[in-house]
Amino acid sequence: MRLVTYRSTVEAAARLGAVVDDLVVDVEKAGRHAGVLLPSSMLDFIDLGPQAPAALKAILQEGRERWPVGSALPLANVRLLAPIPRPRKNIFGIGLNYVEHVAESSRALDTARDLPKQPVIFSKPPTSVIGPDDAIHHDRKITQQLDWEVELAVVIGRTARRVAEADALAHVFGYSVMIDVSARDNRRAGQWIYSKGQDTYAPFGPCIVTADEITDPHALDLWLTVNGVEKQRSNTRHMLFKVPHLIADISAAITLEPGDIIATGTPEGVGAGRNPQEWLWPGDVVEAEVAGIGRIRHPVVAV
Amino acid sequence: MRLVTYRSTVEAAARLGAVVDDLVVDVEKAGRHAGVLLPSSMLDFIDLGPQAPAALKAILQEGRERWPVGSALPLANVRLLAPIPRPRKNIFGIGLNYVEHVAESSRALDTARDLPKQPVIFSKPPTSVIGPDDAIHHDRKITQQLDWEVELAVVIGRTARRVAEADALAHVFGYSVMIDVSARDNRRAGQWIYSKGQDTYAPFGPCIVTADEITDPHALDLWLTVNGVEKQRSNTRHMLFKVPHLIADISAAITLEPGDIIATGTPEGVGAGRNPQEWLWPGDVVEAEVAGIGRIRHPVVAV
Repeated sequence: MRLVTYRSTVEAAARLGAVVDDLVVDVEKAGRHAGVLLPSSMLDFIDLGPQAPAALKAILQEGRERWPVGSALPLANVRLLAPIPRPRKNIFGIGLNYVEHVAESSRALDTARDLPKQPVIFSKPPTSVIGPDDAIHHDRKITQQLDWEVELAVVIGRTARRVAEADALAHVFGYSVMIDVSARDNRRAGQWIYSKGQDTYAPFGPCIVTADEITDPHALDLWLTVNGVEKQRSNTRHMLFKVPHLIADISAAITLEPGDIIATGTPEGVGAGRNPQEWLWPGDVVEAEVAGIGRIRHPVVAV
Repeated sequence: MRLVTYRSTVEAAARLGAVVDDLVVDVEKAGRHAGVLLPSSMLDFIDLGPQAPAALKAILQEGRERWPVGSALPLANVRLLAPIPRPRKNIFGIGLNYVEHVAESSRALDTARDLPKQPVIFSKPPTSVIGPDDAIHHDRKITQQLDWEVELAVVIGRTARRVAEADALAHVFGYSVMIDVSARDNRRAGQWIYSKGQDTYAPFGPCIVTADEITDPHALDLWLTVNGVEKQRSNTRHMLFKVPHLIADISAAITLEPGDIIATGTPEGVGAGRNPQEWLWPGDVVEAEVAGIGRIRHPVVAV
């Protein structure tokens, strides 16, 4: 299933929806009609565990003639928000997790030339999240080196504490797309949170595809364009530390909880690694896609 | 006022309390008795803005004979939790913010010898928070270099976005104590979140002292002992970047929200900086205090 958080003209509050063809089905309303209590927010839905997707799937499979009036809207008529508009904690980002990006980063960003022996983990605050079509802020007083990074995002479904690699994927709720926007000139004593954690620096969406529909999270093409020109293109098979390794590694020390997000790192082609270097400026438009999940598009605006 | 989050044998749920002499007054119950709606959690109380502390102060000043039966318990009979048991986002930590600690860190931890020109910001996930007397976990498979850092913690009271230094302190709700527990051998490509963000690595408490009672947050003695032996002793006047600077700097790029916590950095005397180096091991007891705020005490236990 493709799950979204959306806002419509029908009601003010954000709603949890399931995308079926060109429609968004209101999960709570469809559930109520079927006699199943389902929540209206993504985090509440994730909290319910595997029973919630199973129940929703059954309802959706009954076919649209069974959905109640007012529970489905044309996708074109709603505004998508970030699937989790407000995560409950920092996003866990993974640095230097694609081989060629390690090389370009060592040339351009003073990071080590050797492949990391363990995942390089950093964080982005929940305030950095924006949804599809929201603007990435560009503050000239803060940065002249605003960069892009397309990434596969993993959404945790079940609390993970000291999880073995072999069991790790059972803790995944689903997958999404995130751009790890980075102000390269804002690293401080090597720490990345100020560089990567600013407001609007985590474009996220357009949906979460539930894990049952992603047979192999390491066989997904992903790419990014700036003003329509392709800057990054790779495949998640080139990840240095794969998703099970990341979950096992983080959860060995830091409990992962339902709704937590891991941005799994970016492939080569970032602005810092190009010759000459390229940066995002107001007026630019960034689009990022992971095949089978979806595409997000974000203008860069001056603030 | 000294505000705490506590649990008693009277009811299962955590409650918001105000400490008066040797009593804890249940804020919600005392408020209700006085005809004022006050919440039962610290975050809800902070969200209400300046009116909540003002109303509570008036109630407390009426004197204990006016408090309803069952609204006050002996402090000795309750269990204190972290003042904010579950922050809504990562804690913002400040590295290298005391001059002598910059020196010892450059000798022992490969950080730069020069004083940082801007605050060095990192983060600790909300899952790292523990309350008074809770155990700091020591996992020998993960670390053999577990270290201590006593810090003044600042709790934000009012949303701060692009706040000027001159206005910054108006955004502070209060002050508390935090130990920035750090596994020195868990830094990765220089990133500190795995080193500092593990479960139980943010002992926090015992209370929040509201900002009106801290005339100058840069005139507070702070110290830390391990097994009763003093390891750190300094004064917040030695901070390199003072609290208004930190709030202005972070909020220039990252919106600070009510309940957000800034751990303002540690003075010299950490284990990594000693000769020979010293580390925490199971069986050790760490105590940390900021004068005028309070003391927290934490055993280190093997997990």
